Amino acid sequence: MDRQTCLSFDRQDPLAKLREEFAVPEGVIYLDGNSLGALTRQTLPRLNEVIAQEWGKGLIRSWNAAHWMEAPARIGDKIARLIGAKSGEVIVADSTSVNLFKLLAGALRVQPGRHFILTEASNFPTDLYIAQGLVDLLGGNHVLRVVDRAEIEHSLDGSVAVLMLTHVDYATGEIHDMRRITAAAQKVGALMLWPGAPAYLFIARGLQDAMQSPVSGWMGHAAPFAFEPEYRPAPGITRQLAGSPPILSMLALEVAIDLWLRVDQTEARRKSMALGDLFIQQVDETCRDLGVEVVGPREAERRGSQVSLRHKEGYRVMRALIDRGIIGDFRTPDLMRFGFAALYTRYVDVFDAVRGLREVLTTRAWDRPEYTTRLAVT
Amino acid sequence: MDRQTCLSFDRQDPLAKLREEFAVPEGVIYLDGNSLGALTRQTLPRLNEVIAQEWGKGLIRSWNAAHWMEAPARIGDKIARLIGAKSGEVIVADSTSVNLFKLLAGALRVQPGRHFILTEASNFPTDLYIAQGLVDLLGGNHVLRVVDRAEIEHSLDGSVAVLMLTHVDYATGEIHDMRRITAAAQKVGALMLWPGAPAYLFIARGLQDAMQSPVSGWMGHAAPFAFEPEYRPAPGITRQLAGSPPILSMLALEVAIDLWLRVDQTEARRKSMALGDLFIQQVDETCRDLGVEVVGPREAERRGSQVSLRHKEGYRVMRALIDRGIIGDFRTPDLMRFGFAALYTRYVDVFDAVRGLREVLTTRAWDRPEYTTRLAVT
Repeated sequence: MDRQTCLSFDRQDPLAKLREEFAVPEGVIYLDGNSLGALTRQTLPRLNEVIAQEWGKGLIRSWNAAHWMEAPARIGDKIARLIGAKSGEVIVADSTSVNLFKLLAGALRVQPGRHFILTEASNFPTDLYIAQGLVDLLGGNHVLRVVDRAEIEHSLDGSVAVLMLTHVDYATGEIHDMRRITAAAQKVGALMLWPGAPAYLFIARGLQDAMQSPVSGWMGHAAPFAFEPEYRPAPGITRQLAGSPPILSMLALEVAIDLWLRVDQTEARRKSMALGDLFIQQVDETCRDLGVEVVGPREAERRGSQVSLRHKEGYRVMRALIDRGIIGDFRTPDLMRFGFAALYTRYVDVFDAVRGLREVLTTRAWDRPEYTTRLAVT
Repeated sequence: MDRQTCLSFDRQDPLAKLREEFAVPEGVIYLDGNSLGALTRQTLPRLNEVIAQEWGKGLIRSWNAAHWMEAPARIGDKIARLIGAKSGEVIVADSTSVNLFKLLAGALRVQPGRHFILTEASNFPTDLYIAQGLVDLLGGNHVLRVVDRAEIEHSLDGSVAVLMLTHVDYATGEIHDMRRITAAAQKVGALMLWPGAPAYLFIARGLQDAMQSPVSGWMGHAAPFAFEPEYRPAPGITRQLAGSPPILSMLALEVAIDLWLRVDQTEARRKSMALGDLFIQQVDETCRDLGVEVVGPREAERRGSQVSLRHKEGYRVMRALIDRGIIGDFRTPDLMRFGFAALYTRYVDVFDAVRGLREVLTTRAWDRPEYTTRLAVT
């Protein structure tokens, strides 16, 4: 494998033209799109329109005329098309954390007599925190049961109200078999909750009218402008809204969703697996004996669109890479994460990133005092 | 009072130059700033910078380099200066609804043995809904007690955990005597909670380490990037954060807060009272016998920066006004609300708005079939 071969892969890549839709800065290889995605070129003109025209000129009228009121459901329906849900089963609201709180609370209420929230120890910690906070608030006999990944399916029984898991392990990139685990949970009557970002929530149609939101704000009321003293939940997924949404951020999200709707997802998945495979193969080939180790699945089918490398100086190595314009991130205690967003990452980017890593490791470029200080966000 | 006199008031207005900081559209008299404020001229260039530079070029690095991570506390501290709180007592997070949920839940937990949330029947309905939802979630012996405004202080006793009120009545504009009511609540050991917008929350310094957030997300963890399995609340107000904030919307808010920090608030309050007085005086003088009635306090000291008028065709009258570029809003069943944002509303705007109202009423311009259809947002 050489650089010319990677360039030829890029020339043959059916998704290659999509890179033009993004404003990836010159001199940057961006491998952190799994955390903050690169800016799409349509975002700035669209936000200019939202700010100058819809807010500036339309003012309060834009809730109607610019359809701000419908944005949570409209964008939710677009996400539904991406994730294989039905129209009316997804809504955009709050943050992932708040949505998780709402869904867990709602799930416990429709499962009287079942006292466990079941999850795994390697779940994304904030999901564990949210569940801890809810159980703590409710008191009573609700319990958060945290098991090892291998024990999840054995731990499913009639006492489990809800099984909460994250599809892709944030540290290792390992994917859960969503179909098999969901079926296993439902077989024992447990609800299945898969948290994910951005800040949307999904509830299957048949469950929506049984699910209450504990954060019962006016946007989820059946008649938000009737100003009735009693809360009456709106029908369907709308009742999961709480307060007024952050319009600018939400409409910026919509630009990215609209772009995704133009993409062949099978092709995107195929490319992301190929990029990850190339990365691992290049690390194996060029970074042997340099102290890095691939963490998580080597089989692309079992891996999300990210690869983690362990190195005892991982934090400093990542700082040195970032200073060279190769941007991944770091996860404590020693993991460097590299994400491969298929819409704008080129094969040659992966090749060059591993060459950069090799250079940092061989020259010990990471061994500088300023890389010892931890930044606020890592 | 004639139009020339109003123009002379504007020439003498010490706040007049601030209007240049806003992009109020030509031909619009905007009297709904109490719902959505007019766009400041700095918002668009600042958001362009945030989007193109901080997101587009800085990418994930902007959490550090552009200080995104500190934004909730930084903007909170700025709001603290506006509302007379101390640094570290205010943080920007979530929505007003979610913040209210968090604070009510936290308040009940630090008041064991006190079972009532006390509020008034004319509180903003969404605040009632949030309290209903929380009490419903907690079960046990927590009760939401809703009394008439006149009964609030008589209803305060050792059974009240928290008194929740809104400073300005959304329908009538009437102001609560915040100082007196807070003292009365605290005298019986109740906590005092004043909801308001934008989406910030305040907790007095001495109470912060006792107050837990039920929505215990990673941004409120003592070490958010340690990825510990157990939730450990951050010290101080930071623990009230839940998920990642909507950066674009939050940084747009900051532009408006920065403008407010340049304003003499005493002068702004004085002008807003004068605008309201002028409005009422003009309605009295020119709309007599046209079926409108001033609702709420006539004394400026007892009134927020808004005046409501009752008219049996209030919805259609407001629609006709909006079509003439005079923008207020409508509150069911028959209230037209007019807000007077002191930073960009001129005396002549108030004069012209009442002239427009008089014309709509005398010509029955509201009596058109298209005004009968209710828009989604009113």
